[in-house]
Amino acid sequence: MNQAAMKLYGYFRSSAAYRVRIAMALKGLAYGDRPINLRLGDQWTPEFRDLNPQALVPALVTEGQTLTQSLAIVEYLEEVHPEPALLPKAPLERARVRALALAIACDIHPLNNLRVTHYLADPLDQDEVVCQRWSQHWIRLGFAAIEQELTSSPWTGRFCHGDHPGLADLCLVPQVYNARRVALALEPYPTILRIDAAAREHPAFRAARPEAQPDAPPELRN
Amino acid sequence: MNQAAMKLYGYFRSSAAYRVRIAMALKGLAYGDRPINLRLGDQWTPEFRDLNPQALVPALVTEGQTLTQSLAIVEYLEEVHPEPALLPKAPLERARVRALALAIACDIHPLNNLRVTHYLADPLDQDEVVCQRWSQHWIRLGFAAIEQELTSSPWTGRFCHGDHPGLADLCLVPQVYNARRVALALEPYPTILRIDAAAREHPAFRAARPEAQPDAPPELRN
Repeated sequence: MNQAAMKLYGYFRSSAAYRVRIAMALKGLAYGDRPINLRLGDQWTPEFRDLNPQALVPALVTEGQTLTQSLAIVEYLEEVHPEPALLPKAPLERARVRALALAIACDIHPLNNLRVTHYLADPLDQDEVVCQRWSQHWIRLGFAAIEQELTSSPWTGRFCHGDHPGLADLCLVPQVYNARRVALALEPYPTILRIDAAAREHPAFRAARPEAQPDAPPELRN
Repeated sequence: MNQAAMKLYGYFRSSAAYRVRIAMALKGLAYGDRPINLRLGDQWTPEFRDLNPQALVPALVTEGQTLTQSLAIVEYLEEVHPEPALLPKAPLERARVRALALAIACDIHPLNNLRVTHYLADPLDQDEVVCQRWSQHWIRLGFAAIEQELTSSPWTGRFCHGDHPGLADLCLVPQVYNARRVALALEPYPTILRIDAAAREHPAFRAARPEAQPDAPPELRN
């Protein structure tokens, strides 16, 4: 397989694309950037919908196939490029890491997706304050449970599971980024904040951050 | 490991618990039922929140640990009890099956969860018609994309991936059940309907259906 031939369709601010960028960077995998501007509606073009009928990012083109859904893509990368591992070896520990990842990927992020806040605005005619409160509500519920799990588990280390970043961390960091965008107060989640800070010092997380992407507007790039 | 010692906290109508019941039945695994009545708020008791801080079902107690998140539980069962397999062997095919499962588990189901329609009712003060339309909207978007993927892929067989049921099917069937409950017209999705019909003839899917659970009200049991 020619790694450089992998193409990642993403958007600098998409939490789901951000997860895959972190996984790629942690594993040292090269890919071509294919930015899809979700604000301008690039996801609705016939060309992109041929690639991904869901009209969502990320989509990874590799080995002549298009892979969709960030966690399916990360599991694929883990199977094909096992080192460094993003999941522990023991089934019970893998289940814990996947549960942390899914608590974000299923129960927080999809509720705050752009298409959902758009639907709240039209047809439901809710204003920006209500939309922001909606986003904060679901992140708060999810983060409270995750914080409790992280503080009560002996498996929590410098990162969500031990001292190396993995699948849970690559979901957590984009969700914290998202929480800051909707101005959620993060003081009630000191363990989440500590892990986020540790991750942001890591070169792979730095390379994957939204502000470092070629499609980030110049005023956000630093 | 003592299989009979596995305990599954669920609710007959929860799509996520339904997924795990199908996986258990497909693999022939015994477990003790621990019904949590979501309508009565059993998930908010301190006892249950000690088990699962997210206050969601399912939760599987096994090997002295509590596993949460349906897809993490199913992946665990697949790793510990590999036969019959719920995922294909090849990484690209595994990615396809996981993407189908996640298109339901992330992008349809969480938007229609009880806690979300509750929030639409209070504080957002939306009536039942709006809540039903909301649920239909997200299922319609998701099913349209899944139908397109199923009809265009050579991997689709009697089930979502080949001729044996797996991870995608055990997400699809509960979502179809849910779609019927919100009165969504399913004619636009003939492949989904065909696979749902094939699954409902399968003994594992029959054993796992909501109406067959001990906590289903007598008037629904058949």
